[in-house]
Amino acid sequence: MIKELQRANKIVQRINKLAAFSEDKHCLTRTYGSKAFIEARNKVEAWMKEAGLQTRIDNIGNVRGKLQSQYKDAKTFVIGSHIDSVINAGWYDGPLGVLTGIDLLEQLISSKVKIPFHIELIAFCDEEGCRFHTTYLGSKVVAGLFEEPLLETKDENGISLKDVIEEMGGNIARLEEDGIALDDWAGYFEIHIEQGPVLFNKNIPVAIVTAIAGQCRIGVIFRGEAGHAGTVPMDMRKDALACAAEFILATESYAGKNKKNIVATIGKLHILNSAGNVIPGEVICSLDIRSANDAILNSSCDEIKNIAGDICKTRNVDLEWNLIQKSKPVICNIEMNNLLVQAITASNVEKIELISGAGHDAVPISAVAPVAMLFVRCFKGISHNPLENVELKDIAAAIKVSDNFIRDFVQTFKL
Amino acid sequence: MIKELQRANKIVQRINKLAAFSEDKHCLTRTYGSKAFIEARNKVEAWMKEAGLQTRIDNIGNVRGKLQSQYKDAKTFVIGSHIDSVINAGWYDGPLGVLTGIDLLEQLISSKVKIPFHIELIAFCDEEGCRFHTTYLGSKVVAGLFEEPLLETKDENGISLKDVIEEMGGNIARLEEDGIALDDWAGYFEIHIEQGPVLFNKNIPVAIVTAIAGQCRIGVIFRGEAGHAGTVPMDMRKDALACAAEFILATESYAGKNKKNIVATIGKLHILNSAGNVIPGEVICSLDIRSANDAILNSSCDEIKNIAGDICKTRNVDLEWNLIQKSKPVICNIEMNNLLVQAITASNVEKIELISGAGHDAVPISAVAPVAMLFVRCFKGISHNPLENVELKDIAAAIKVSDNFIRDFVQTFKL
Repeated sequence: MIKELQRANKIVQRINKLAAFSEDKHCLTRTYGSKAFIEARNKVEAWMKEAGLQTRIDNIGNVRGKLQSQYKDAKTFVIGSHIDSVINAGWYDGPLGVLTGIDLLEQLISSKVKIPFHIELIAFCDEEGCRFHTTYLGSKVVAGLFEEPLLETKDENGISLKDVIEEMGGNIARLEEDGIALDDWAGYFEIHIEQGPVLFNKNIPVAIVTAIAGQCRIGVIFRGEAGHAGTVPMDMRKDALACAAEFILATESYAGKNKKNIVATIGKLHILNSAGNVIPGEVICSLDIRSANDAILNSSCDEIKNIAGDICKTRNVDLEWNLIQKSKPVICNIEMNNLLVQAITASNVEKIELISGAGHDAVPISAVAPVAMLFVRCFKGISHNPLENVELKDIAAAIKVSDNFIRDFVQTFKL
Repeated sequence: MIKELQRANKIVQRINKLAAFSEDKHCLTRTYGSKAFIEARNKVEAWMKEAGLQTRIDNIGNVRGKLQSQYKDAKTFVIGSHIDSVINAGWYDGPLGVLTGIDLLEQLISSKVKIPFHIELIAFCDEEGCRFHTTYLGSKVVAGLFEEPLLETKDENGISLKDVIEEMGGNIARLEEDGIALDDWAGYFEIHIEQGPVLFNKNIPVAIVTAIAGQCRIGVIFRGEAGHAGTVPMDMRKDALACAAEFILATESYAGKNKKNIVATIGKLHILNSAGNVIPGEVICSLDIRSANDAILNSSCDEIKNIAGDICKTRNVDLEWNLIQKSKPVICNIEMNNLLVQAITASNVEKIELISGAGHDAVPISAVAPVAMLFVRCFKGISHNPLENVELKDIAAAIKVSDNFIRDFVQTFKL
């Protein structure tokens, strides 16, 4: 592993350098189109060039480094992750995949292996979507799924996406040309930190991702009756917060019983006109349900809604249930995952399969190409936080597994 | 009852007129020291004069109308309630007691009964405490319990209480002279709307108040661990909101089992850095516990704290418990309440005893004098709301009961 550790060390040094490109002096914030973003993008392009890739910036702002196959009419295999960040971000979320990708291709080039497909390494420009409250701008363009109306979306300063693209040198009329045609895809591979605690708790360096969970986002409103905290006896109350509390516990219990298949979270809760001496009359809360199984996701939403209905009926509280967003699960490609199993076994690493509860650039790509992902353990599962950290030996394990995976994928790929 | 209904009608007409004195054109808001307050005060003083009382405005701003006893060294019996209001208030909270008081004394004067004590009708200037976030400014002065440091308290425009008093013509150096000396009290009687739903639900017009509940206000903080709603499995979470939800339900259940003795309310709840896709890491909520029994109030606080501790221990969540305020219950005078029972029976009204969960001017007065209160039913228990309403026949019942009560109190009072 000494060689892999040295490679990992170089990757981490680059991740640290990249983190210096920030909109905020005191922490890492690098949103799409910012000065810091453009500087980071240029740095990544320089590193890609150095590795021997033919680079270009596409119209939406992705950095793309190509390794040409000698075969005529070769398809394209994409390795990617993103270089934009959330506000006050960690350093590894995105860049780990991009900079490990550069290392893997540098290695592949030096091995002089003949590749049966072109390989494009893509540093996607906007996965977090912090600036325009959209996600996957970069990977949507590459998948040919970019929706034109998005161009009119404005950031908080009133600047439109269209203006930002043009300011960065992109041509909005040519966004379509940056997509990889449906028939030209050989596959997609992404390395990303887990952003959860499973690998840390189980003490395993990497995981194969079997699916990216689908998600239901629901707005739930409980309407009871406000009243004076001192004058309304306990048995005459219609306390909207107590009703919401029963719902929160019932949801937690339902998801706990189905913990292999779903997670469910109430992350926001607001009491209307709240005061310490007023019985809550109306409570609004969020509900986030995720599952890798679409049928289970749908039935869980229905069943949790029924549970809420029953609680409200018993308490004589009105329920409003608003589905805000639903996305289907993405199933990772079985053949590619079998090769990952083989690569992990060959690397003497313990095999574990995980479902990604977070979304990734692999989501839009999955609509047009087979996708696979390798998760890397992060410290205590902490992410979207300056405390985000990854150990060198885990990056080394990811390198070893990915080297093996790419070698096997190259060997078994049918032209 | 026809005569009492006519008197009630006059009272309601005056309540309606008084409601026109408001800081806000669209609703009733009349806080201490405002132009609307001063106009209302002058109107009330004029009505008191008309009824035959010797009036004055005291230094804090109470309107005081005196009916002199012919006895030398007579004590003073106070009938009172307040004429300030909350923001967007109802019309009856306070004024009902003041204007019924004027009517009762007008009646007493015309009956030419000899009274063994002076009677002072007081329209207290600040019970709600909206302007300075203090309560009972007026009744504290009358009880001789005004705390001088309060003078420096500032309203939201930076105007001090001291300045407001002087602007209204009061002399801060003479506030003490407005107190009734401990030995001079014959008693205190207040008519007030219930502000709760018990009389409305039981279809009874008035209630004897046996006690005004003591109150504990506690700030409760649950510290769990924030996490990604998609990536942290259900059994690896330390969800502060789920923990708070369990606490809310346990508190509701505890108070429900002890509903004859306590009410408990969580009125405020705030999730730190909340987002729909983030597991709540820290939740702050309020807890308001009230009881007419001081020992039960204390033991309930202790037991609910223990319940919170157990829940947090099981969930591996940290608990912070901050006692913010504690007030002792006020027990109404038994002799006066026996006279109220007698008056209610003589009035052919169903007898019911209630505990006041809300505070009243009777609270500071109780420190220096025997107090009694008569509650009047309000529509659906709604208060602090423009929908606050009281029926004429219930005011008529309160008049009949109060006439009888004052007559009996006069007859049985020992000089």
